[in-house]
Amino acid sequence: MIKDAVELVIRNAIVITADRDRRVITDGGVAVSQGRIVAVGTAAELAPWESGAARVLDASGMILMPGLINTHCHAGDSLFRGLVEDLPLEAWLQTVWKAEGAILNAETSYLGTVLGFAEQLLTGVTTVMDMFWYPHETVRAARALGMRVSTGGIFFDPPGVNGHTPERRIAEAERFFADFSGADDVFAAVMPHGAYTVSPDTLKGARRITDSHGGLYSIHAAETRAEQADIQARYGRSVIRHLDAHGLLDQRTVLAHCVHLDDEEIAIVARTRAVVSHNPVSNLKLGSGIARIPDMLAAGVRVTLGTDGAISGNDLDMWLALRLAAMLHKGANEKADAVATHQALDMLTRDAADALGAGATIGSLETGKLADMVLVDASRAHAVPMFDPVTHLVYSAGKSDVRHVFLAGEQVVADGRLTRVDLDETLAAVRALTPKIAASIA
Amino acid sequence: MIKDAVELVIRNAIVITADRDRRVITDGGVAVSQGRIVAVGTAAELAPWESGAARVLDASGMILMPGLINTHCHAGDSLFRGLVEDLPLEAWLQTVWKAEGAILNAETSYLGTVLGFAEQLLTGVTTVMDMFWYPHETVRAARALGMRVSTGGIFFDPPGVNGHTPERRIAEAERFFADFSGADDVFAAVMPHGAYTVSPDTLKGARRITDSHGGLYSIHAAETRAEQADIQARYGRSVIRHLDAHGLLDQRTVLAHCVHLDDEEIAIVARTRAVVSHNPVSNLKLGSGIARIPDMLAAGVRVTLGTDGAISGNDLDMWLALRLAAMLHKGANEKADAVATHQALDMLTRDAADALGAGATIGSLETGKLADMVLVDASRAHAVPMFDPVTHLVYSAGKSDVRHVFLAGEQVVADGRLTRVDLDETLAAVRALTPKIAASIA
Ligand SMILES: [Zn+2]
Ligand SMILES: [Zn+2]
Repeated sequence: MIKDAVELVIRNAIVITADRDRRVITDGGVAVSQGRIVAVGTAAELAPWESGAARVLDASGMILMPGLINTHCHAGDSLFRGLVEDLPLEAWLQTVWKAEGAILNAETSYLGTVLGFAEQLLTGVTTVMDMFWYPHETVRAARALGMRVSTGGIFFDPPGVNGHTPERRIAEAERFFADFSGADDVFAAVMPHGAYTVSPDTLKGARRITDSHGGLYSIHAAETRAEQADIQARYGRSVIRHLDAHGLLDQRTVLAHCVHLDDEEIAIVARTRAVVSHNPVSNLKLGSGIARIPDMLAAGVRVTLGTDGAISGNDLDMWLALRLAAMLHKGANEKADAVATHQALDMLTRDAADALGAGATIGSLETGKLADMVLVDASRAHAVPMFDPVTHLVYSAGKSDVRHVFLAGEQVVADGRLTRVDLDETLAAVRALTPKIAASIA
Repeated sequence: MIKDAVELVIRNAIVITADRDRRVITDGGVAVSQGRIVAVGTAAELAPWESGAARVLDASGMILMPGLINTHCHAGDSLFRGLVEDLPLEAWLQTVWKAEGAILNAETSYLGTVLGFAEQLLTGVTTVMDMFWYPHETVRAARALGMRVSTGGIFFDPPGVNGHTPERRIAEAERFFADFSGADDVFAAVMPHGAYTVSPDTLKGARRITDSHGGLYSIHAAETRAEQADIQARYGRSVIRHLDAHGLLDQRTVLAHCVHLDDEEIAIVARTRAVVSHNPVSNLKLGSGIARIPDMLAAGVRVTLGTDGAISGNDLDMWLALRLAAMLHKGANEKADAVATHQALDMLTRDAADALGAGATIGSLETGKLADMVLVDASRAHAVPMFDPVTHLVYSAGKSDVRHVFLAGEQVVADGRLTRVDLDETLAAVRALTPKIAASIA
């Protein structure tokens, strides 16, 4: 039987579906029609689709997996990569904000965001939750590259980069929902910066916007001990209790970091179904600490992964986040099974899609879902021998193994190169801006 | 003035010399004659060497640095990469030893070591301290690829892979020194496995061999709490005190891991000038713990870096070891300056060369030293902008950025490919062995 014409068949791959059963197909692939997966299966199951396919891609020696999902980033901050080093979070933030204030406007935010998104797309990241100053520019950057993005109006009580008042920020956040609600490449959110930079009234005002539109709510939470002490001093309770008391935690809330939670806070996060975005690279490099991920998982907390910005990285490497999620907690807890290998992979595929309310359309390779897919080269020295492809992805593969990336079936990375954007042009523009960036903190 | 003919000039690079002053040359390079560096300097300083050079390599957009040095590895264990997962060290070791016993002989040890060394050479590692069952095969593998190696007779009281008696192991260790003493590509050592697998008498017998030849002495030490408890129960003192009491610690001793040291043990290691090989990836993944590196550095301990074997990795990535050395302890100690960026880079360049007693010939780019050098691509998205090349190397660069590698001036990696060995042949041989390896623990 010959199936209807499809645009793409990928065959001969090791397929990591990341579906509910964590199905792995040792020799198989997918068929894609109108941007969606119409079949995922073995070589035999795919054969009927091949003769009518516009393109058949032989993925021998490669692993096919869903696009990676980063649930916490500030891609535009890639402009400041490596500018401020070896400072604790509070002093570091003051310097970063000085540089941001001197450099960022709509145009430079776009440039930095293209840089940060391009870096990630080349490593197989297809969707990013990104908090930055000009969310319309963030969407424009994602669309230029062909990526999906979750973003929206930022809330920040100090003047911040653009000096907007809380009232103006509310209007902007409303406008974001008006412009992008319903798009399948934008998951609209509101993004209050944190409980230490945004008043309870504004936190609640932001929440009303997202509630009325059904969007996401993303906020930094409990990143450092100093933040916990600050909120305790100001409000007489810890960060998570503070957010919970104001009704800000539910299944649409994404809490970035959660490094310093006590047992009861972990229980609150679990009960409310709020999502934690674990950012191990940032937390280590800034000296914030090591999040209690095994305790969170044991309590049923929904854990996903993020890179944070490249100023606390200094790259945006979800593969490193993945490997650290799987191994950092084994070491920190002296427990070799503290986080299971398969569970770590879920954190940046299906669980991350669920976190963005997009579990029905992305996050796994399943019939009916959008064809956001990555082909990972598994023929290099560090991939041989391979006894389990999931173990390989988590503990041995890395960003440079990503060869091809597809979004809704469109190939946006081919053999390690972007197909839509001239990266060299972006890099040249960033280099031209570099002396001014260096001078901004002098 | 035109200088004498040289074989190679590299120019237009950002040069990280890793010399005592940590000199960085923003536009410069080296001249190489008869395998040694005859000049390192700015473009102007190199100009006289260029006209008589057999080859001039334009390294625009690249960073030139010394070859990386790995002070703890079992490259042959790459055959078992990913075979045993999510087990604590003791149970994991039992399974690994079962697989090793079923698979390893001189021929398969050679194959596995070529695999493990090839993987590392492609990432810029030029020298490896490697402990494995057939040290002559280890040297043969290193020489096939053009790398330097520190290895020698292994000591292990149980029968181990080859069932050799302690007497035979002593004879083999002696023969190793006889065969390789004085070679500039082999730093001869004796390698007792650990205080928990080797009796005090054999530890001392091994020491007499290395003392009489002036070689190195490498041993696993204080990797886990269980090991400390075991040695305490058997000998009434901790691992480092035990080794010190038997006179086994001095500047030629390389102690792998040292995860669990008390304050006095740190002081003993510092006082004796013994070297610690910090293996953060292995220590995390196996749940061994997090070594007290900042305390060691404060006490003056000589710290270097290792990968351990690919069975606890699961790759052999010194760039990941580097980044973790710089950032893991910031997080674990909640101190953003716990390990300085420049100090981390020293750990796998000049400090590692000193650890191998080879500080006069390798470990930095200085006139008179062997031209073991790496060219790192600094033109990719994650390298832009770049405010400090050392920060870039430590926090953003990675193994896939390595383009060219030279040993004593010979190019052994060109554009990411080995020049001496057919890697595909090695990978095919490993793949052919894979079903047998999988069956070995069934
Ligand atoms: Zn953040
Ligand atoms: Zn070891």
